[in-house]
Amino acid sequence: MELLKERIRKDGKVKAGNVLKVDAFLNHQMDIELFEEIGREFKRRFADVEVNKILTIEASGIGIACIAARSFHVPVVFAKKTQTKNIAGDVYTTQVQSYTHGKVYDIIVAKEFLGKGDKVLLIDDFLANGKALEGLIELVEASGAELAGAGIVIEKGFQAGGDALRARGVRLESLAVVEHMEEETGGIVFRGEAGA
Amino acid sequence: MELLKERIRKDGKVKAGNVLKVDAFLNHQMDIELFEEIGREFKRRFADVEVNKILTIEASGIGIACIAARSFHVPVVFAKKTQTKNIAGDVYTTQVQSYTHGKVYDIIVAKEFLGKGDKVLLIDDFLANGKALEGLIELVEASGAELAGAGIVIEKGFQAGGDALRARGVRLESLAVVEHMEEETGGIVFRGEAGA
Repeated sequence: MELLKERIRKDGKVKAGNVLKVDAFLNHQMDIELFEEIGREFKRRFADVEVNKILTIEASGIGIACIAARSFHVPVVFAKKTQTKNIAGDVYTTQVQSYTHGKVYDIIVAKEFLGKGDKVLLIDDFLANGKALEGLIELVEASGAELAGAGIVIEKGFQAGGDALRARGVRLESLAVVEHMEEETGGIVFRGEAGA
Repeated sequence: MELLKERIRKDGKVKAGNVLKVDAFLNHQMDIELFEEIGREFKRRFADVEVNKILTIEASGIGIACIAARSFHVPVVFAKKTQTKNIAGDVYTTQVQSYTHGKVYDIIVAKEFLGKGDKVLLIDDFLANGKALEGLIELVEASGAELAGAGIVIEKGFQAGGDALRARGVRLESLAVVEHMEEETGGIVFRGEAGA
């Protein structure tokens, strides 16, 4: 998605430790007009797929998922990262290791909002080692719902998560796949480009 | 907002400890068509107010804020609940005590996304004791930005938060104010109704 790649080049910042900081428009400050274009692009890429629910994970997936849901005309469910007293005990749960923090946390979805008959599109802002997405897939499988696919805004193609999921047969659409980043120059090469 | 009150009556569940569970449509599963009506209602109520940024707090405020932002044509910033290595050190920060969990946590907003000249509308899903909203107001004040107002989906009118903020002069618009809830019958009385 050219508009997105241009924006990453313009406002993204390459930091030490393979961190790509896009908090000016994606996951701290959120550019809703860009999100609308992203939502429409997900709809184009999954036009042939039946979807009746979008599943994402708090916190930074929620904004993208909600705007994308307007193009699919479906509700969004977000997996929560810890058990709160507002969630009843009847939940699907699994553990995820955060790439950013290194910590292991539980994610949960209430059973009443995911189950047999659901055709679920996963949406998230980032895919790196794929642990969050794997966790969401486990919840979908545990619920008996069908996995329609996964839409990712930015994939770090030099980490193993995306290709491992493709190898498992997951229909994965990443709108921008970063192949190389250079902290010193700030240079970013996307998959499919010269130098990738 | 009648549509919202009807939905709370239909799908909300009154639980022990003055908990109103609305996770079927508001803060776990999210009904995006309802969110669009909510966004338009916020725009109607703040039609006379200049707003160039919406500020919310993760996680359950994000969906509402992003959809409402479509009606205001402004970006959204969400305050984060802990420091992550993706956020630079240059942040506004304060502490908030969670009504739901009882825990105290830090909230942060990067300085580059909030500052002098900004006219900020706060958006959140719930207002009970008002601690989250007070925290967001502290961040706005620390940044030198102007507080345009606060839009809340559900206020628990029998808790002190909302009226304390109104007494401070905050322009607060709550789309549904719950005055009484009864766990045994599941009955809900909204402000302005007979019995309130």
